[in-house]
Amino acid sequence: MPRPETPLLTVDVIIELLERPGEVVFIERRNEPLGLALPGGFVDRGETVTAAAVREAREETGLDVTLEGMLGVYSDPGRDPRGHTASIVFVGRASGEPRAGDDAGGVRVMPPDKAQELVFDHARIIEDYLSTGEVRFEPPFVR
Amino acid sequence: MPRPETPLLTVDVIIELLERPGEVVFIERRNEPLGLALPGGFVDRGETVTAAAVREAREETGLDVTLEGMLGVYSDPGRDPRGHTASIVFVGRASGEPRAGDDAGGVRVMPPDKAQELVFDHARIIEDYLSTGEVRFEPPFVR
Repeated sequence: MPRPETPLLTVDVIIELLERPGEVVFIERRNEPLGLALPGGFVDRGETVTAAAVREAREETGLDVTLEGMLGVYSDPGRDPRGHTASIVFVGRASGEPRAGDDAGGVRVMPPDKAQELVFDHARIIEDYLSTGEVRFEPPFVR
Repeated sequence: MPRPETPLLTVDVIIELLERPGEVVFIERRNEPLGLALPGGFVDRGETVTAAAVREAREETGLDVTLEGMLGVYSDPGRDPRGHTASIVFVGRASGEPRAGDDAGGVRVMPPDKAQELVFDHARIIEDYLSTGEVRFEPPFVR
């Protein structure tokens, strides 16, 4: 089978901190586009989307995240100016103090409705997150 | 940014026919792996996952599908023996008689629990489908 070209697959995680209810973790991007973003990144071949979400959260924030559910799938071709990506967005919980990983200039913990300069479509994702109290796994199933 | 390699992004659709309640549409695969499969295929770059689902359903079955909700995300690296794909699986409804498209050897309409020789992880997808009466869009969001 010729290898087709599809959107690249990414994950993002809205991380709720047990010690700071009502706040979530953002990273300050070190590369263009500059601004605040949810922790996340590309899914590796051979990796499930949930494994990728836990790995990216750890790499970018140092936190061990327990995923609570899937917020949604974001696949608008214009969501990332660098090329078409489709992101599976999760909500997870963690305990402890986040620290910036290699890819992040810094981490910020704040109420999500106070986050300015969100890059990509992360403002839309936060809007969706704030509009719902229901995020869970079954259904939708994540296998 | 160097272009990373991620799982390829696909969609599949469980199509319920208004005229045949309790039955869904399968295609008889013309290529390996042979067997029955849900209609679906690769998402094109520049295309949303919902647009891809409607397009693939039309190409493979001739049906105009209205998507009702997302069943889940299936990303196990072993789900397709030809390479790692991650599939966004939808449930949709259509009216009329399906007809096999170019990629299909034929179409079959039957109660999903009667489908034999399902390829990929489609038996698991059908099991999930049969286990839930709740398939909807918000949440999870599909953008």
